[in-house]
Amino acid sequence: MEVKEITNRDVDFAKWYTDVCLKADLVDYSSVKGSMIIRPLGYAIWENMQKILDDEFKKLGHENVQMPMFIPESLLNVEKEHVEGFAPEVAWVTYGGLEKLEERMCVRPTSETLFCEHFKKIINSYRDLPLLYNQWCTIVRWEKTTRPFLRTREILWQEGHTMHATSKEAKEETLRMLNVYKKFQEDYLAIPVITGKKTEKEKFAGAVETYTIEAMMYDGYALQNGTSHYFGQNFTKAFDIKFVGKDNKLEYPYQTSWGVTTRMIGGLIMVHGDDHGLVLPPKIAPWKVIIIPIGDVDGPIEEVKNLLNENNITYKVDNRSKTPGFKFAEAEVKGYPIRLELGKRDLEQGKVTLVRRDTLEKKVILYKDIILEINNLLIEIQNNMYNKALKRRNEMIYEAKTYDELLDISNNKAGFIKINWCGKEECELKIKNDTNMKSRCLIDNEEIDGPCVVCGNKALTKIYIGKQY
Amino acid sequence: MEVKEITNRDVDFAKWYTDVCLKADLVDYSSVKGSMIIRPLGYAIWENMQKILDDEFKKLGHENVQMPMFIPESLLNVEKEHVEGFAPEVAWVTYGGLEKLEERMCVRPTSETLFCEHFKKIINSYRDLPLLYNQWCTIVRWEKTTRPFLRTREILWQEGHTMHATSKEAKEETLRMLNVYKKFQEDYLAIPVITGKKTEKEKFAGAVETYTIEAMMYDGYALQNGTSHYFGQNFTKAFDIKFVGKDNKLEYPYQTSWGVTTRMIGGLIMVHGDDHGLVLPPKIAPWKVIIIPIGDVDGPIEEVKNLLNENNITYKVDNRSKTPGFKFAEAEVKGYPIRLELGKRDLEQGKVTLVRRDTLEKKVILYKDIILEINNLLIEIQNNMYNKALKRRNEMIYEAKTYDELLDISNNKAGFIKINWCGKEECELKIKNDTNMKSRCLIDNEEIDGPCVVCGNKALTKIYIGKQY
Repeated sequence: MEVKEITNRDVDFAKWYTDVCLKADLVDYSSVKGSMIIRPLGYAIWENMQKILDDEFKKLGHENVQMPMFIPESLLNVEKEHVEGFAPEVAWVTYGGLEKLEERMCVRPTSETLFCEHFKKIINSYRDLPLLYNQWCTIVRWEKTTRPFLRTREILWQEGHTMHATSKEAKEETLRMLNVYKKFQEDYLAIPVITGKKTEKEKFAGAVETYTIEAMMYDGYALQNGTSHYFGQNFTKAFDIKFVGKDNKLEYPYQTSWGVTTRMIGGLIMVHGDDHGLVLPPKIAPWKVIIIPIGDVDGPIEEVKNLLNENNITYKVDNRSKTPGFKFAEAEVKGYPIRLELGKRDLEQGKVTLVRRDTLEKKVILYKDIILEINNLLIEIQNNMYNKALKRRNEMIYEAKTYDELLDISNNKAGFIKINWCGKEECELKIKNDTNMKSRCLIDNEEIDGPCVVCGNKALTKIYIGKQY
Repeated sequence: MEVKEITNRDVDFAKWYTDVCLKADLVDYSSVKGSMIIRPLGYAIWENMQKILDDEFKKLGHENVQMPMFIPESLLNVEKEHVEGFAPEVAWVTYGGLEKLEERMCVRPTSETLFCEHFKKIINSYRDLPLLYNQWCTIVRWEKTTRPFLRTREILWQEGHTMHATSKEAKEETLRMLNVYKKFQEDYLAIPVITGKKTEKEKFAGAVETYTIEAMMYDGYALQNGTSHYFGQNFTKAFDIKFVGKDNKLEYPYQTSWGVTTRMIGGLIMVHGDDHGLVLPPKIAPWKVIIIPIGDVDGPIEEVKNLLNENNITYKVDNRSKTPGFKFAEAEVKGYPIRLELGKRDLEQGKVTLVRRDTLEKKVILYKDIILEINNLLIEIQNNMYNKALKRRNEMIYEAKTYDELLDISNNKAGFIKINWCGKEECELKIKNDTNMKSRCLIDNEEIDGPCVVCGNKALTKIYIGKQY
């Protein structure tokens, strides 16, 4: 596969993104419109994400289960807001083999209804609570316009579904899992994120409250990179799920759900990528080091591989019959955090060369220090990537006190804008119509310092607004 | 959840099987007919299976990818035998949201066609081969009658798809992966298996050769517990996939595919289970030890948990407010390999009790030897389970030299029968019609010692026949 030119990131960000997805061999297209093929590098990143999050979920007591992938139409219809939100965008199975189904079924767009049907059967007493379930699966939403990872008809994700005896516990779970996502994205993906509550208009169909993880991409657009919902008793009442409490009375339990998807890979690309291609944070990169031999260094390669294995540093060796220059370019496109050049002449002098992907800086080091240098560099790259993303993100957060200011920033700058807001949907809608910016989330730790920027009435809260993927 | 009576295994094996599936909390039913909910214990077993196999696949150089879950009808139609085999049993998506699709799509029943479309794009040169891919996913086959794990409309599985420059390499891969399955099932699941080639009639739709893993269940029925296919150039020609060889000539590559499914969990249940419920081999059990406190032993429990953690022995603690007797019964239903009874009085004498699930034997041991005793017992249980299954399986393999003998065995015994066979499908069909036994696989390491048991003509091979799930 030839490494071809990648569009300049500042010239055409959308084209740059697609170029990176395809040229880093993350995805490919197929005759299945709106779906993507996730290729080995893309899938290995997803496996790493799964592993880290799954361990975290399990540590917190969650158990994995697997529900059916289909939902009969009547089951989807049980919770009113929920079906209104999802029915227009699902894929319908109408035939099984040669026979028309008596009742059509959709491919799950999310599994609340399936979980609730099951919960009704297995929850009887307060002793059965909390019930902490999670599912890794593929869901389908029939999107019109699609882009790899960001918006696809098929989505790989996890969906947590938990049931609690009290509202307090369910709310704690909602925020606990929001925080797991935040920590994961900051610590592993090196993506600084903003968390907060969604407005009524933007919340999940059927939820009482939706909390979101908002990341800012290189171009200033927002990516909703995970959500955690508090359902209260909305679904448990609709599905008539009850438990006998400690006081021997029948009660409806309180519920949460929370999920992240392969969209996070899109976030990784758009926060860290550059004109050379993908840049992977060491902690999520499937292979931390790409070894590129220069000249005949078969012996040393084996020695280095053993050293890396002993120190649990993952790597790949590029020993194809191509020029080093070709391999360097491909290693850059694919985003390996460290390129290790093993040159014959260098080695004779007890030296090797490390090139870090984030800055492309070269460093000649002593061969004997190779593990120490690599380990230090991996930490440095991880930190640098986070700090760089944080600095850029913070520089692209603006504040507007008047509607004119808002329009001015929206027209001339990329990024998020903080505003005071009265809480009315019509003001949210006006902003959307005038600027294509949507509310990202409520800001709950900052003082309201003026009236609503849209209507001038008393503001109830501050919010972030931003254009979105 | 109450532990209720399980049907006697020798009275009604089918009912016993369903009882164990439900009462060990492995699965539940839902309003989605023919699908199952895999509950935490069932899914944890599947995760263990995945982990062990996935590590093995990766060690052998395979990479995981993810194809779309849908196949447009025209794509399914490309390979003639393949579509004839699968079209009658697929689920068809005809609507996306409110719009009727221009071309209907099925939910993948298997992904050869999707992989081939992709391979055509990414394979150009012999340097791109071998290409070793695997996919973990859910497939759908619209079965009429279903049973948990054994035959369901949705199946969790892995499907390996590999491409090779030569027929020789592809055939080696086919047998290599067959052997990975065999070793996994014998070493981890403690299920002795027979491997061999399927007859023309029983092979996969589109394959040149299908190799199978055949396990015998407690009732003598066969479970096809995995397959590995050699496709030759059937698909590569149909999809026009070509590569430039070392000799600079265009050639069609050679292909394999291989898969195992959650059906293996059904095999585990039906080989090892008993009238008390599930019996899990230690190497696949998600939790090796169930700790049951008797009296107030909170301090010792913490100490034992630390010891088990330090020694990487997985466990669960049953500290619900139920009687020990209730807990013992439930631990038996769920098949934990070892029950560790921590009794206050025992502990005062420096003793604890271990009960092994396979034989239900009790052993009072010294507390100070707890890790040594548990580790030894886990090995002993694993070996005992395999040997017991092997002995039973071998005792239930018969040999028939005449058709009358075959009918006699088929009517009066449960198990497999070895016969000499002429290779003609009509003889295979006659056996099926008369006895409901199907050919399991060819036996290639035994001498032919008589004519075909059906027609009396010259036999070409020996085969196993057996009734099947």
